[in-house]
Amino acid sequence: MRISELAAESGVPVATIKFYLRSGLLPEGRQTAPRQAEYGADHLSRLRLIRALLGPGGLSIAAAGEVLKQLDQPPGSTHGLLGAAHHALDTGVRARAGQSMTEHPRADAMLASLGWNIDPADHLSRYRLEEALAGLEAAGFVPPPGFPEMYASAMRELAVRELEQVPLGSSSEAMRYVVLGTILTEPLLLALRRLAQQDVSAKNFADTAPPPSPAGETVPKHS
Amino acid sequence: MRISELAAESGVPVATIKFYLRSGLLPEGRQTAPRQAEYGADHLSRLRLIRALLGPGGLSIAAAGEVLKQLDQPPGSTHGLLGAAHHALDTGVRARAGQSMTEHPRADAMLASLGWNIDPADHLSRYRLEEALAGLEAAGFVPPPGFPEMYASAMRELAVRELEQVPLGSSSEAMRYVVLGTILTEPLLLALRRLAQQDVSAKNFADTAPPPSPAGETVPKHS
Repeated sequence: MRISELAAESGVPVATIKFYLRSGLLPEGRQTAPRQAEYGADHLSRLRLIRALLGPGGLSIAAAGEVLKQLDQPPGSTHGLLGAAHHALDTGVRARAGQSMTEHPRADAMLASLGWNIDPADHLSRYRLEEALAGLEAAGFVPPPGFPEMYASAMRELAVRELEQVPLGSSSEAMRYVVLGTILTEPLLLALRRLAQQDVSAKNFADTAPPPSPAGETVPKHS
Repeated sequence: MRISELAAESGVPVATIKFYLRSGLLPEGRQTAPRQAEYGADHLSRLRLIRALLGPGGLSIAAAGEVLKQLDQPPGSTHGLLGAAHHALDTGVRARAGQSMTEHPRADAMLASLGWNIDPADHLSRYRLEEALAGLEAAGFVPPPGFPEMYASAMRELAVRELEQVPLGSSSEAMRYVVLGTILTEPLLLALRRLAQQDVSAKNFADTAPPPSPAGETVPKHS
């Protein structure tokens, strides 16, 4: 199909598609005439993936480019997939961390007490944890005792079930699963967490706020 | 203390403090001379909070401003706190969503099947869930059956324990707890999730080829 048909099919404007072509996110089409190229089903699915990474995935153009590069060149081992996937997703953290990334005392202490097996060369994941723990501390927010451990055990239970599902047949399929599973389920988890808090809050504090109407058309009840 | 002492105490450069003053994130000090102001312990703790929101919290200046405004003017009811807190945190989602925010068919279906009690006027939280579910779909990533429900139930279990801890004595204290608890534990949860995946992956896939090190330095030690 031509670029105009690709635009119609995908719902992405021609100008945006041209921008993705220029940025290297979307591979060039097959040249059929001096100023005309032909695009296929691969382009369509790649375009949907780009939209998902930049939209709900919340990635920058640069980070999306790294993720796509990883998807195109899968690493050798199944466990290596995960490191490569996480690495590609962490462009922003790396930029913020700079030199200090190898210092992560709070994270080291917590991981040691959890007994988790983390690649010693992977400072990035530790730095993310360090940054989160230091942020709580800096804001003067002391989580109740046992809370970080409660989060850790909830996340580990999810990880066990998530990794049971990785398709091991093809490494490019596995890479795709791990990258998308990580990046696209993060917004899902966070959205569900806030909704779950609302549900629990509505039940716990029903006496302090009028109950929400089941009809779905009434005035806001937060007051 | 003077602004230079505030800078020394907090580790935030004077120029940055002046920028926070101009943006309204940090209240002005008490004027003691034509070009001199006095700052107190309140300024110091506010400064730490601003750094946590902009750093690990990942908020823009505008979003941090909204969060701080909410913290300064707590709403009336305990359940209302949560809505106000979530609202303040969602500046970016609101900007992205525009007109389409009241359409959230996937989220409605999922929430109905979960039986959660969500304020019908709160389109924003539903829109976040819709965006996450639509993103998975658009990327051609079909989570295994039961996965969204598994995430939902894990998040609800956490919410029950989190909300048990909200300090109900003062509403400004409760607001602070909910806002910081939401925004600063999100990076903690996501960091722990990736580390948990690594730990599980190291145990499950120890028999496959040695993983490439993302940092490209050390020999990985998964075995």
